[in-house]
Amino acid sequence: MSVRPTVLKLGGSVITDKEKKLTPNLPAIERLTKEISRANVSPLILVHGGGSFGHPVAEQYGLKEGYKDSSQIMGFSITHQAMTKLNTLIVGALINHNIPAVEVQPSSCVITKAGRIQSMEQKPLKKMLEMGFVPVLYGDTVFDSETGFDILSGDQIVSSLAINLNARRIVVGVDVNGLYTGDPKTDSGAHLIQHVTLGELKKLENRIGGSKVTDVTGGMLGKMFELKPAVEHGIQTIIVNATETNRVYKALKGEKVVGTVIER
Amino acid sequence: MSVRPTVLKLGGSVITDKEKKLTPNLPAIERLTKEISRANVSPLILVHGGGSFGHPVAEQYGLKEGYKDSSQIMGFSITHQAMTKLNTLIVGALINHNIPAVEVQPSSCVITKAGRIQSMEQKPLKKMLEMGFVPVLYGDTVFDSETGFDILSGDQIVSSLAINLNARRIVVGVDVNGLYTGDPKTDSGAHLIQHVTLGELKKLENRIGGSKVTDVTGGMLGKMFELKPAVEHGIQTIIVNATETNRVYKALKGEKVVGTVIER
Repeated sequence: MSVRPTVLKLGGSVITDKEKKLTPNLPAIERLTKEISRANVSPLILVHGGGSFGHPVAEQYGLKEGYKDSSQIMGFSITHQAMTKLNTLIVGALINHNIPAVEVQPSSCVITKAGRIQSMEQKPLKKMLEMGFVPVLYGDTVFDSETGFDILSGDQIVSSLAINLNARRIVVGVDVNGLYTGDPKTDSGAHLIQHVTLGELKKLENRIGGSKVTDVTGGMLGKMFELKPAVEHGIQTIIVNATETNRVYKALKGEKVVGTVIER
Repeated sequence: MSVRPTVLKLGGSVITDKEKKLTPNLPAIERLTKEISRANVSPLILVHGGGSFGHPVAEQYGLKEGYKDSSQIMGFSITHQAMTKLNTLIVGALINHNIPAVEVQPSSCVITKAGRIQSMEQKPLKKMLEMGFVPVLYGDTVFDSETGFDILSGDQIVSSLAINLNARRIVVGVDVNGLYTGDPKTDSGAHLIQHVTLGELKKLENRIGGSKVTDVTGGMLGKMFELKPAVEHGIQTIIVNATETNRVYKALKGEKVVGTVIER
């Protein structure tokens, strides 16, 4: 890859209504697609979460704990089908805005081992980037060499791909402004951390609260756990509030924006 | 794989209305899904064609000739999106009939070289078979190491997978009764070939007509060209008319059925 790609993550809490099962946030998808189109960053990889298409369905069938009995088999198919449905909406919106999006389906090319990516076929994805396509990956049900199957979070995909492809920047769009020194909803003294190194982050970790709604793949702490290896690799990572207009746009362009920059 | 899998191909002319762009044949999909459910063959791999979701769209953007200029990039995304849409209908119908279907997206795991499969990641697919899932593949737009991209036919996938997984049987569901000694539409003396060896096939080849409608991946002759390597490998292949009730069911069960059996 001659030019280092940018990896954009759009959280499930941004592109879906996390309180309502299987409900996309179509205005947010439309706005974010326009921001991505306007930013016109290339090469670009998009990874999105499952939100209410993923977590509640996966929980219903107890997929997160791996294969236990054959009653989960149909549950896996149904959960994967839901995640694919959300992905189809995202890819469709991108194509409507003239972005040459092609999904890369994690379940078709990734094998995990006890929940961690063990192998990922990247030849088609690399060819897409080389040719100017925007590969779109997502949190997905995947097959696991140890537990049968698992839920692979978009965050783990982001970090793994960013490291493998030596990404220029990771932009993580979530439903909060970034990392806070405490929970801004309950702690009036909590303030947004604009810049943090991995060393400083370690000290802060115990004080960072989880996200609003239970997330089987982890909230903000889970996110940090997944993203840290990429930051350690030297990839600048910026967390922005993707529910606010133009934050994702500015972060993609490398402009100054409200959010948290994490650097080695 | 302890038990050898059966590979079922459903032709695009069976599951779509080939004369009407982007039009599925929902009654046929529903009936065939019931036949597959009733046959209850395991392990089973399903591969379907693109029909009117694939060929006319791919032709519109000149994808079959490979990458020539950037105007085709959006065309590739749109063609792939159409093929994905058909696949979603098939997988949905299978799930509705309690078949644990999970699609394996060729564009995510295959690279071709000048139109021939160069590499195909099969770890997820093998894990699916081992666990009792029904992997569903399809004719798809794929990336090509030489020409940029290409259309990969469901028939090439069938043959490649059947050989790699040492399939027990290939069942090919098309819109004719099987191979004829001539074109039954124009030649009143043409009759159905019930059994043919590869040696006999070679002699007949010049007399086998193409299928009704132009097919960018080849008609019956193209099908034979793709399937022959699997037959050479020792895999019994049976061509049946999937537009007729119970032919696919009987072929899956290994029962006597109207069609053409091809053996080494």
